[in-house]
Amino acid sequence: MNEKTFNDVVNHMKTSGFVYQGSEIYGGLANTWDFGPLGIELKNNIKNAWWKRFIQESEHNVGLQSAILMNPNVWVASGHVGGFSDPLMDCKECKSRFRADQLIEEASNHTVNCGGMSNEDMENYIAEHEITCPKCGAKNFTNIRQFNLMFKTFQGVLEDAKSTIYLRPETAQGIFVNFKNVQRTMRKKLPFGIGQIGKSFRNEITPGNFIFRTREFEQMELEFFCKPGTDLDWFEYYCKNCVQFLKDLGINEENIRLRAHDPEELAHYSNGTSDIEYHFSEPIGWGELWGIADRTDFDLKAHQTTSKQNLEYFDQEANEKYIPYVIEPSVGVERLMLAVMCEAYQEEQLENDSRVVLKLHPALAPYKVAVLPLSKKLSDQGDEVFAKLAKHFSVTYDDAQSIGKRYRRQDAIGTPFCVTVDFETANDGCVTVRDRDTMQQERIALDDLVSYIEKRIEF
Amino acid sequence: MNEKTFNDVVNHMKTSGFVYQGSEIYGGLANTWDFGPLGIELKNNIKNAWWKRFIQESEHNVGLQSAILMNPNVWVASGHVGGFSDPLMDCKECKSRFRADQLIEEASNHTVNCGGMSNEDMENYIAEHEITCPKCGAKNFTNIRQFNLMFKTFQGVLEDAKSTIYLRPETAQGIFVNFKNVQRTMRKKLPFGIGQIGKSFRNEITPGNFIFRTREFEQMELEFFCKPGTDLDWFEYYCKNCVQFLKDLGINEENIRLRAHDPEELAHYSNGTSDIEYHFSEPIGWGELWGIADRTDFDLKAHQTTSKQNLEYFDQEANEKYIPYVIEPSVGVERLMLAVMCEAYQEEQLENDSRVVLKLHPALAPYKVAVLPLSKKLSDQGDEVFAKLAKHFSVTYDDAQSIGKRYRRQDAIGTPFCVTVDFETANDGCVTVRDRDTMQQERIALDDLVSYIEKRIEF
Repeated sequence: MNEKTFNDVVNHMKTSGFVYQGSEIYGGLANTWDFGPLGIELKNNIKNAWWKRFIQESEHNVGLQSAILMNPNVWVASGHVGGFSDPLMDCKECKSRFRADQLIEEASNHTVNCGGMSNEDMENYIAEHEITCPKCGAKNFTNIRQFNLMFKTFQGVLEDAKSTIYLRPETAQGIFVNFKNVQRTMRKKLPFGIGQIGKSFRNEITPGNFIFRTREFEQMELEFFCKPGTDLDWFEYYCKNCVQFLKDLGINEENIRLRAHDPEELAHYSNGTSDIEYHFSEPIGWGELWGIADRTDFDLKAHQTTSKQNLEYFDQEANEKYIPYVIEPSVGVERLMLAVMCEAYQEEQLENDSRVVLKLHPALAPYKVAVLPLSKKLSDQGDEVFAKLAKHFSVTYDDAQSIGKRYRRQDAIGTPFCVTVDFETANDGCVTVRDRDTMQQERIALDDLVSYIEKRIEF
Repeated sequence: MNEKTFNDVVNHMKTSGFVYQGSEIYGGLANTWDFGPLGIELKNNIKNAWWKRFIQESEHNVGLQSAILMNPNVWVASGHVGGFSDPLMDCKECKSRFRADQLIEEASNHTVNCGGMSNEDMENYIAEHEITCPKCGAKNFTNIRQFNLMFKTFQGVLEDAKSTIYLRPETAQGIFVNFKNVQRTMRKKLPFGIGQIGKSFRNEITPGNFIFRTREFEQMELEFFCKPGTDLDWFEYYCKNCVQFLKDLGINEENIRLRAHDPEELAHYSNGTSDIEYHFSEPIGWGELWGIADRTDFDLKAHQTTSKQNLEYFDQEANEKYIPYVIEPSVGVERLMLAVMCEAYQEEQLENDSRVVLKLHPALAPYKVAVLPLSKKLSDQGDEVFAKLAKHFSVTYDDAQSIGKRYRRQDAIGTPFCVTVDFETANDGCVTVRDRDTMQQERIALDDLVSYIEKRIEF
């Protein structure tokens, strides 16, 4: 097996129908990506797996879809208007713009972490260490200016401060502001969670690494509300459950680690935060995949104060009122997709051949089955098999070139089963099913085919 | 059966976990809505049904997810920068703002249709007919100013013309610009379609009727590419198929009509456009639900001209190159959801009782099953049944109040099956399954329960 690199995975995704550059025919739009027919199937399968595990199968949790456009006071209360910003400075000579923390971290070869530094600290550090402009080499920077990362837009016909609204930078706040609505209309008792999958937007100055960090992205966030005092137990529970979910999706334990935030990293209101990191293919290496935070009552309290609405929960059993604590597991769909692809991508040396194969969990594979009629003369039968299977799961059809080439094509896009329709099929009512991973073939009756496959693609 | 009104349906959706006012605790944000636990399940079921019918089961079609943020030249080519606007005029006295076409249509009691009128025509009409300001009664309007309906934002750190981008007003253009990418990477031959489900944004001056017309909404669009000359056949095919889809979702034929656009309504490039209209509950009545348009080669040609990329297709069989024609069926998720709810909502008079029941197609019902333990003592068994079923479909659990009240609650949210766990269950391994529509009960073995339900919720 060859050692794969991050670039191998990216190139494969770009050339085989998973991801295209956004607005490509117009020269693109920086850092936007479009998901092709295979990419959207994979994304949908990831989202469905998350929804199934964290919403459908949970006795506690329900779903939500809040709007991307919200009342701007939401972002005042959440702290995003005041504090969701990057420290930017310009080179006075060449006019290039940089993030001060990145200037320092790169100039120090990542031996310095700016996490705890104030803007003044960073300005002083840059001056003292005579850090130069990476573009032109000058040592002449402006002071730091905080740049808010929320995309702004205007609702209504006037473009002024009064009509300014934002594209949400996270889905979580849409859950917090609906805490009471959901609790009341669904007659929920603590503990319970509200989950949401949806787009968020961050006007990052330095996005990158393909779909690892993009300005437009999809989040899968759960806010799990519980009684204060029980929060650390639920925090542990979700740390464990999120790791288990990744393993169940076929991610190797060796490529996962749980990293607890240091005290200086930890937000002042948090009782604990851990990141699940994934070891992406080299040279990326370890990167944050999933954040799990015990946010205490910080968010609901902030919304209660700003909105002047009572967000307390009345606990009938204990006969007391309180603001619940909240555990927040939050993961990006595209980043998880990238991890899944890094994990699945293999270049395999076979006896007389080699192949690229995506060893995706069958539940995640874009197509569950490829229908391959052995001859164009069998296309009627092939169509029948396609129609029969496509009622149950996603299927593709391929009748071009040799069967060997068609197997390779399906391996490369992760299709777990190839079904060959041959000249015997009309006589014996059977097809040949070939397994992606073992490459073994089995003769299966058409009548049993759907259940044969359904059993093997469950999540 | 009582005659339901549109308001009955809206109130039911607002009070039972389907829809909340967006940003409600902050007094809302005009015309935004959040979808509660039941609303998002219903929406997901509608989207899954569309995807299954138009992508998964189709031998021709594949999916796509293009970015919301695109290169602004996309919207120059599509005509949205130049022409996607409303004709606005202000009352000089009270400063209120109106759409000129709506002023005329309302003043004429909808006897005048402004479809073919120029701005000058409308200004003249308003002056001649001495139309007054609906707010203050003055007859002193400004001239018409075109107001573009695209939401604007800025990517990067500068807020200037160069960094201006738009929130997409439709998902269709993301498909057109990827026509070649999809065709090439998926090795597609004509005819084939590319479908997409995603958010679009329109800065409407007068949105309204609950979720019928909102500024932020989800579209389900298919662009079906075919050889010029075959387009009218495919146009017919999709008109028929979309109607069939609605009927299969349980919409009564009497509430659907197909309205072909008049010659003066028809876009200059279109070979034909029809709207599927649905009869929403009164007083809304007939409203547009689904647009199906034969757009010829208009869009691909426009993108070819503006991007200077060759978007021709090489037809191997005919050995010729051409720009394909395209059929576009386009429907909004929220509007279809509203139609489905208007259709399903019933107030039924029973012998000794009455009930609100949502007669949703079981595939659309937010919960397929409610698990109802007859006594709190049976909660362990109830949990087991819940866990067993929740592996397969969406389930809810209710152990509060009498069984009759619980049935009514499930009727009101459209749950097709209630499963009662009783004191016999431990002995005979059976539960009682009660049908939402017939209210009949049946004793079913736990071992057969999943397949019993799966058979009845298929789409």
